[in-house]
Amino acid sequence: MTLPKKVRIVEVGPRDGLQNEPGAVSAAVKIELINRLADAGLPAIEATAFVSAKWVPQMADNAVVMAGIRKKPGVAYPVLVPNLKGFEAALSAGAREVAVFGAASEAFSQKNINCSIAESLARFEPVAQAAKRQGIAVRGYVSCVAGCPYQGAVEPAAVAEVAAELYRMGCYEVSLGDTIGVGTPGKIQAMLAAVIQVLPVEKLAVHFHDTYGQALANLYAALELGVATIDSSVAGLGGCPYAKGASGNVATEDVVYMLNGLGIETGVDLELVFEAGRYICEQLKREPSSKVARALLAKKAA
Amino acid sequence: MTLPKKVRIVEVGPRDGLQNEPGAVSAAVKIELINRLADAGLPAIEATAFVSAKWVPQMADNAVVMAGIRKKPGVAYPVLVPNLKGFEAALSAGAREVAVFGAASEAFSQKNINCSIAESLARFEPVAQAAKRQGIAVRGYVSCVAGCPYQGAVEPAAVAEVAAELYRMGCYEVSLGDTIGVGTPGKIQAMLAAVIQVLPVEKLAVHFHDTYGQALANLYAALELGVATIDSSVAGLGGCPYAKGASGNVATEDVVYMLNGLGIETGVDLELVFEAGRYICEQLKREPSSKVARALLAKKAA
Repeated sequence: MTLPKKVRIVEVGPRDGLQNEPGAVSAAVKIELINRLADAGLPAIEATAFVSAKWVPQMADNAVVMAGIRKKPGVAYPVLVPNLKGFEAALSAGAREVAVFGAASEAFSQKNINCSIAESLARFEPVAQAAKRQGIAVRGYVSCVAGCPYQGAVEPAAVAEVAAELYRMGCYEVSLGDTIGVGTPGKIQAMLAAVIQVLPVEKLAVHFHDTYGQALANLYAALELGVATIDSSVAGLGGCPYAKGASGNVATEDVVYMLNGLGIETGVDLELVFEAGRYICEQLKREPSSKVARALLAKKAA
Repeated sequence: MTLPKKVRIVEVGPRDGLQNEPGAVSAAVKIELINRLADAGLPAIEATAFVSAKWVPQMADNAVVMAGIRKKPGVAYPVLVPNLKGFEAALSAGAREVAVFGAASEAFSQKNINCSIAESLARFEPVAQAAKRQGIAVRGYVSCVAGCPYQGAVEPAAVAEVAAELYRMGCYEVSLGDTIGVGTPGKIQAMLAAVIQVLPVEKLAVHFHDTYGQALANLYAALELGVATIDSSVAGLGGCPYAKGASGNVATEDVVYMLNGLGIETGVDLELVFEAGRYICEQLKREPSSKVARALLAKKAA
């Protein structure tokens, strides 16, 4: 078990995080946050989503955000798209990378996007094809990889199947999401082992939620299997939609702290991420979920 | 790397936790908490400390607590003692197990107990001898095993030296404390590897703080090396004295959740520990630090 020497962190706070916050912020604040995160050295920042403003009003300012951010060379700014219509809107707004999503749980797929897993994947096929024609990178998400709020257990084989299909459709990377944070290290390794059988570990990312405090232990278990891309959210932005008031995304600060301690290179400046998190938490009038951020705030206050 | 099949959890909330809480509770509440923790299946519960009431007023009710708790057969109720005077008071109060402590950091020893590491160990020698004569079990703590708030880095060899000395003096188990929560999995494994060279892994416990969110990842790394005793604090009671407002002890609920997920037997009922945590948090008028507790509270509220 050799840990990777470098890890790429995909910052999901401005999209996945802010979409699930009770408070709202202006497009100008989102732009400032994204620019600060880029300056902190994050190599990929999920910027917004091109989804129905009726269903996801938090992302209605998507085109304004895309127009306003300073596109730092070398930084990817993927945006979430649910279908071809969203893809075209993203392209018009200048996006050069998109993200699509499927669930490993049939019950979740039905409740969340009102169609079967197979139907959801079929919906992404034209997006993947259009993206290929136009040289747009596509990232894939699989949700519920360690459990589902509706059906409970999710088999590793089901995760592997959806991940392989997204990869086959052209996703350059597939991010495996423990959407409700119920994974523990052994189950995470069993799930990853199944997925690694059907697609190269270099093409995998992990996207863990800290709802039950397990995210960093799970990330360490994933690193042991060679996973070298980690999704995280500055200040732990984004709660858990399935347990209001509980934690959601693992905090970028906590991930960077662990990777720094392990001597794994990320290119991310912890102090600058912390400052970006402090900025957005002030705007949202909330405490950071990041324990590193809380410890640094406490030390600075002393 | 085979994980242990069983783990013994040493609950430190009633002593280490409550001693470091800003709020205070009555002896009756402490007794109720300890009894609930025993009913939840915890095999060892650090009940109180026999220290100067001038320095540690939170533990002034030590004899009342010891007299009041229902001593459940098979459950150990260790109490902290700093010296022979404390040991004798503990014995008079009915204690059958005591805990002594040393630091792996010279600077911490000087600042915290105003003497060198060697002097602190010399002070425990008569306690260890008296305990042996009277058939009292002695547990040893080593603090600052992954870093010190005053001197910074702490060498694994320094930890191993103090741990070996406590073991030589007769401690049946030595608990290695990351007092300020700065450890990360690789450093923890390096530290443990040094200690395991000088005393059997079966005689080791780990006592990790979650100040920077690393505790569960570190515990998982310790399990990989065969450590099978874990100290934790219900609801994460006890903040960090070196960063006011930050987290301290790892929460028992979060540890049990991980161990349950790993299929490791503890004998602890998660729901009952959660209820004990809810009880003491209501008394202290604080939120639990445990993410598991927060998620369960959020789910129950929904």
